[in-house]
Amino acid sequence: MIGRDPFVSDDRTVELLDTTLRDGEQAPGVSLSPDEKVEIAQALERAGVSVIEAGSACTGAGERQAISRVTDLDLDARVTSFCRGIKGDIDLALECEVDGIHLVVPASDRHVESKVGSTREEIREKTADLVEYAKDEDLWVEVIGEDGSRADLDYLEELMGTALEAGADRVCFADTVGHTGPEHTYEAVSRLAELGPVSAHTHDDLGLGVTNALAAISAGADLVHCTVNGLGERAGNVALEEVAIALSHVYDVETVELDQLYDLAQIVSRTTGIQLAPNKAVIGENAFTHESGIHTDGTLKDDKMYEPYAPETVGRERRLALGKHTGRAGVRAALEEHDFAASDEEVGEIAKRVTELGDRGRRVTDADLLAVAEDVTGDDHERTVELLDLNATSGGPVPTASVRLDVAGEERVAAGTGSGPVDAAVSAVREALGPAGEAQLEAFHVDAITGGTDAVVTVEVTMSRDDRTVSVARSEADITRASVTAMVDALDRLLTDEKAARTLADD
Amino acid sequence: MIGRDPFVSDDRTVELLDTTLRDGEQAPGVSLSPDEKVEIAQALERAGVSVIEAGSACTGAGERQAISRVTDLDLDARVTSFCRGIKGDIDLALECEVDGIHLVVPASDRHVESKVGSTREEIREKTADLVEYAKDEDLWVEVIGEDGSRADLDYLEELMGTALEAGADRVCFADTVGHTGPEHTYEAVSRLAELGPVSAHTHDDLGLGVTNALAAISAGADLVHCTVNGLGERAGNVALEEVAIALSHVYDVETVELDQLYDLAQIVSRTTGIQLAPNKAVIGENAFTHESGIHTDGTLKDDKMYEPYAPETVGRERRLALGKHTGRAGVRAALEEHDFAASDEEVGEIAKRVTELGDRGRRVTDADLLAVAEDVTGDDHERTVELLDLNATSGGPVPTASVRLDVAGEERVAAGTGSGPVDAAVSAVREALGPAGEAQLEAFHVDAITGGTDAVVTVEVTMSRDDRTVSVARSEADITRASVTAMVDALDRLLTDEKAARTLADD
Repeated sequence: MIGRDPFVSDDRTVELLDTTLRDGEQAPGVSLSPDEKVEIAQALERAGVSVIEAGSACTGAGERQAISRVTDLDLDARVTSFCRGIKGDIDLALECEVDGIHLVVPASDRHVESKVGSTREEIREKTADLVEYAKDEDLWVEVIGEDGSRADLDYLEELMGTALEAGADRVCFADTVGHTGPEHTYEAVSRLAELGPVSAHTHDDLGLGVTNALAAISAGADLVHCTVNGLGERAGNVALEEVAIALSHVYDVETVELDQLYDLAQIVSRTTGIQLAPNKAVIGENAFTHESGIHTDGTLKDDKMYEPYAPETVGRERRLALGKHTGRAGVRAALEEHDFAASDEEVGEIAKRVTELGDRGRRVTDADLLAVAEDVTGDDHERTVELLDLNATSGGPVPTASVRLDVAGEERVAAGTGSGPVDAAVSAVREALGPAGEAQLEAFHVDAITGGTDAVVTVEVTMSRDDRTVSVARSEADITRASVTAMVDALDRLLTDEKAARTLADD
Repeated sequence: MIGRDPFVSDDRTVELLDTTLRDGEQAPGVSLSPDEKVEIAQALERAGVSVIEAGSACTGAGERQAISRVTDLDLDARVTSFCRGIKGDIDLALECEVDGIHLVVPASDRHVESKVGSTREEIREKTADLVEYAKDEDLWVEVIGEDGSRADLDYLEELMGTALEAGADRVCFADTVGHTGPEHTYEAVSRLAELGPVSAHTHDDLGLGVTNALAAISAGADLVHCTVNGLGERAGNVALEEVAIALSHVYDVETVELDQLYDLAQIVSRTTGIQLAPNKAVIGENAFTHESGIHTDGTLKDDKMYEPYAPETVGRERRLALGKHTGRAGVRAALEEHDFAASDEEVGEIAKRVTELGDRGRRVTDADLLAVAEDVTGDDHERTVELLDLNATSGGPVPTASVRLDVAGEERVAAGTGSGPVDAAVSAVREALGPAGEAQLEAFHVDAITGGTDAVVTVEVTMSRDDRTVSVARSEADITRASVTAMVDALDRLLTDEKAARTLADD
């Protein structure tokens, strides 16, 4: 029964195969250039993945060039190509000088009969021939029984047995369509493990990607196919980072360099253009963020109070956020970060108002907190920078913008150009402020826009100057206005200490 | 050992508790208005969830108002509030007229000692008192041992036993910080199940949310805490849709109305502002999308070839996408949708070029496919609508735009206003086309922008007219230009049949 008996001892060796460059790339809308494949392969090598499936040599010339670029890197990891059960596919893989191949042959009757119009016996014979051919070429060979989880188990056993007898290095139990559960996975992998080394290839269509990978390992699989960020066809393959952290944290089985996981996730998200959900395990933006009063308070008392493991384990940092559920402890910690002094009573009132603000809106940024704090303490904020007018033209060849700012009581007008209306306006703001207003734009983020062209757009900017950092969010239907008011408010916060204001006035 | 023995028979009754409105809302940056809570509660009721945890009455007056709005709906589902181990919290929950409460008391020594500065014995006594108090008020009571997965199991058993003896309706094994694995979950829940009804509360920090929920069920838990889309603190709670589909598909255990899951996911994503990853199981955009040649070809031969269950099961439809991995079968099917005739040889060439296009870029839309097809077949496309000039001003009070279009050989100029530069430009385009150019903007999507203000923005629009639908994507640094060129290209495709062109010329 799932979970009843002990899993694996910590001396078990489990290795990870990453197929981000093959199965991951087959995710709809994803296409990686050779340069991008190289960048990801290098990150996978840093993480210590055992096998890198670099692509499908049969896809086309561009793909073969990309695979060759990866094999040229001469990595410690074994570099492989996907091959259909066709001799020509193996030849194309050889052209790319891969170390090995994944020979994918139909296992379920649906695939044997409807997809390739063959018979079980024919597939077995062909598999044996192809394995012998590939082994003669000195390739490492893993045979994958496609749709293995829907195959007749006796036939799957025969087919995989044939492959191993023909010389395959290992066979793989593939839940190609993410159809099965841990019990069947356990049974199938146990039977295959009697025959030789077994890998597991699991998909997440039922949310069981990790469950089935663990079941396969407990049944004897010692190589698990994964993708970074769980990319892949449909709901994707099982996520590398989840398998790695679960094996390490729960079972003391180490597979890859955990502190590389976040970096890896960022590289893959950027190159594939597939954004990460904030609540994605290990690598999501919120995975180590605490907002609620109870959790923030607890975390400030003891790091481990609301975290299973330290964020540094996977190359990250903890973050405290403000919002509807924030309590006094979180507010006090945030005020201290901005050197804002407040009495206990004031902190209580500020926390109450922050909750109210969260009740209405979505995010409570540094700027919102400081505005509330000033209002509560009566410590009036005299603005150093204020936006008086803004005008941006776009659509034509040279997006252009002008701004009129009040800078420490002095009116300043400036214009700028840029790649779009926001970029042009930002350059006008910088021009108006001059060198004294220099600050780093640490982050500029616009939420994905869906719905219509009149949807409200939320822009969040984070700016820093010297060692101070301020975040501001603005939501408006006009993206230009939202971006520029957020940026000006952030600059105002950064420049509103006396020294900075004086510098500006003397500018 | 995980997966070794059968799980549960299909006559097992498992119910789902949804805590999207409480634990889900505690996700950083999420805040739901009373109206939004009502909308989600109604959707949860349609899906047939057994218990709806509507919030934490202690959070504030706004929250209590929202909970009261939900209890006022008089749903079939039991509506509850979270309560800390404080009498005042129960009183606040009573004010909202909830059916029941979740009384959360510290279970691990870390929580007993560091967080609340108490002792095991004190916590037990207090728990008994509070349960009796709540039961005297006729509340349904579930006692949750917070951080139960890190608690001493003997103490957890004592604490939960005390709660049940004091009259609690059930107790809950909580893996509050997403720390544990299925073996420990199984052991703990088995021991608690000896004492009385047990629930499971699992988190996904290790990617084990579903694994642990299944382990708990197999050990005797009959109520599982979930959130829609897996929202919640950090990496979130276990996802309702994953638990529901896994139980149904693998174990024939039915919990909720599966065909409501997609609708539910959309409502929660929209109201919380938390976007879904495209590769999220069940509800992600790509969960039933096929791009690769092998998968598309197989799916066209047999729906079930590459899907574990039909998309309609969860209220969705299948989608075929074009890209780097598209083969002939996918291209032929897409061309047929646009009534575009091509010979076998031409389809082969078109497929080759679509692959090349995918090799370079990210998405291959309808417009891209048609452009390639026309080039290959020599079937020249005479544009009906072309953008000659575009100018949009934004940042000020009234975003305004003008366009100059070539419409079937005639130059047309028009202006429009809108809520932002894109909206203004779109209204100018519509004005220029007049009634004959009427088409529905089915979808307008801008990918989230990160990086800098000069980042390339990808806009995808889908427009329809009569029964034809066309998608176009454009990537440019100027969001106005990207949006308008995509829209004009889509309109051009929709209007470029002779009849439509004639209508326009006569307009």
